[in-house]
Amino acid sequence: MSRPRPFNFSAGPAVLPEPVLGQVAEEMLDWHGSGMSVMEMSHRGREFISIYEAAEATLRELLAVPREFRILFMQGGGLGENAVVPMNLARTGKVDVAVTGSWSRKSAAEARRYADVQIAAEAFSPTAQWRLREDADYVHVCTNETIDGIEFQELPRIDTAPLVIDCSSHVLSRPINWSRVGCAFAGAQKNIGPAGLTLVFVREDLLDRALPICPSAFNYKVVAEHQSMFNTPPTFAIYVAGLVFQWIKNFSYAGKTGLAAIEQRNVEKATLLYAALDGSSLYENRVAAECRSRMNVPFYLKDERLNDAFLAGAREAQLLQLKGHKSVGGMRASIYNAMPLEGVQALISYLQDFEKRHG
Amino acid sequence: MSRPRPFNFSAGPAVLPEPVLGQVAEEMLDWHGSGMSVMEMSHRGREFISIYEAAEATLRELLAVPREFRILFMQGGGLGENAVVPMNLARTGKVDVAVTGSWSRKSAAEARRYADVQIAAEAFSPTAQWRLREDADYVHVCTNETIDGIEFQELPRIDTAPLVIDCSSHVLSRPINWSRVGCAFAGAQKNIGPAGLTLVFVREDLLDRALPICPSAFNYKVVAEHQSMFNTPPTFAIYVAGLVFQWIKNFSYAGKTGLAAIEQRNVEKATLLYAALDGSSLYENRVAAECRSRMNVPFYLKDERLNDAFLAGAREAQLLQLKGHKSVGGMRASIYNAMPLEGVQALISYLQDFEKRHG
Repeated sequence: MSRPRPFNFSAGPAVLPEPVLGQVAEEMLDWHGSGMSVMEMSHRGREFISIYEAAEATLRELLAVPREFRILFMQGGGLGENAVVPMNLARTGKVDVAVTGSWSRKSAAEARRYADVQIAAEAFSPTAQWRLREDADYVHVCTNETIDGIEFQELPRIDTAPLVIDCSSHVLSRPINWSRVGCAFAGAQKNIGPAGLTLVFVREDLLDRALPICPSAFNYKVVAEHQSMFNTPPTFAIYVAGLVFQWIKNFSYAGKTGLAAIEQRNVEKATLLYAALDGSSLYENRVAAECRSRMNVPFYLKDERLNDAFLAGAREAQLLQLKGHKSVGGMRASIYNAMPLEGVQALISYLQDFEKRHG
Repeated sequence: MSRPRPFNFSAGPAVLPEPVLGQVAEEMLDWHGSGMSVMEMSHRGREFISIYEAAEATLRELLAVPREFRILFMQGGGLGENAVVPMNLARTGKVDVAVTGSWSRKSAAEARRYADVQIAAEAFSPTAQWRLREDADYVHVCTNETIDGIEFQELPRIDTAPLVIDCSSHVLSRPINWSRVGCAFAGAQKNIGPAGLTLVFVREDLLDRALPICPSAFNYKVVAEHQSMFNTPPTFAIYVAGLVFQWIKNFSYAGKTGLAAIEQRNVEKATLLYAALDGSSLYENRVAAECRSRMNVPFYLKDERLNDAFLAGAREAQLLQLKGHKSVGGMRASIYNAMPLEGVQALISYLQDFEKRHG
């Protein structure tokens, strides 16, 4: 492309690193002299196995995933996992869920198909105040609420039962404290790659608790035993994800490299954007400072009659997909790993310019 | 690419039409001036919705899918559907399965998690001889057994219960007689597009029979009500599938166009290959003539000590992925829609040349 690409603030599927897309295009008809597109490779052939193993190894290194955790490449997304997790882990039928926003509310509702669900919290709150059962099979937390713009800055420390985290919308944006986690899952379509791939990290001692009605293709133990190839995995999405992992590994910023560099840039992007919103009299973000998301920044125009003009002007300024989720209205800027600093700066310039004209 | 691509006989993921791969590469960084890759688009945005609607409409037209069938774009593949089908349809817990090969055997085993399964047939046989129950929820048939190379040339006519067909490995290679079908499913990775997309065609009167333990993301009714967007669908795979549908629609051969042209070429490819195998004294296909698959042609070298030499020579002749499935050994040539006639001719030349040298 000769002209620069617009900045894409979609909440997911979302912006991907431009060099990754370029490499995918280049290798489309012939991956590494194999004479095949990655889409055309048998998942059991040596070419794809090498792609798969490299992706898994890079991911394990980036997130410092301990040896006792298995990494599974699955399908069905976060909403699929809302059923797959209890089918795999709700052995005695007791699940505690902290409801901190739209996603955890959906998780609680779906888990009720398989278990007695206790709501541990009705909103973001200190873990010490949660209602937890000593005999729960697990505690479910959504560590970044994409719609509400709420993020746990630190993982809750739960002593009653294994912690399951839905980290779909901030995975790989920061490290994970594995000592506090039993199982983590993430749809790929925000920070990882194409929609249709779901990553699951599961501690080995949790592999043997599935309900008899758990489908084989979604049974963590079966998937782990088959190196994610019990059924045909989403091969092309795994390939793209592997390139994204490599891009993060090679990323450098402010004297750092890899995940630390990505996190540093994410902190700076979010700090700049929240400061701009807080400093304005036209816009507002309504999330308490201690749980504001670095990834998803919902905001409102105080005069909502300006919404359409705001969005039209944004499109003209090459700032795409800023409309908020239909359930909460307003605007939302998702500033995932692949959003450059320049994208946030361009958004802030536009916010200020629009405020000057309409404030 | 300057040199011609090798011929890829993989059973799946499998060869795709070269013009489709070229278009995907071209549009990778900027789909139709949108400034986004298809991978980066919100599934709810107008750009992706247009891609989705075009794909569905073309597919409906190609297969002449009647209005009373819903087309669902799902995830999990054929092995996932082995559980998803009974969770959606085994309302009274009685399922009849015709076991005609490896795939239907797996389907029967998985259905036992949810239902009492009766084996209607132990091998390919006339429907009149099948043991069927008047009160079964459905009858499951795999209409093309990828591993065994067995294909129903005509859909069984079942009067006792709705017929469910697993048509993963021959979908879109020939028409479907919808008057005999209640539900059909197909993993995409043979004739449709990238692995990770699963197509389900379901008659509307079957939408309301799910078991309470059926996950929402895999509940046909929920998926139908949300136009396959209850959870984020595998957007990029749907885009590629849509291009493949369009390629079939525009395909012309022997004075025909569209699916009729594809079928005509498939018949000719299979006829040529079976004739070459039957006419040799070195190779044999062991499937009865009335149920030989047009898509997957397993064959054996009568002297199996020559297997390695055969495969090495094939690779040198740019004929890829001819090794048979590990459970049955020997060789297998999968000659899906995207395999050109020239690929089959090149394979036959190699077969004859190898026989001259080693026969």
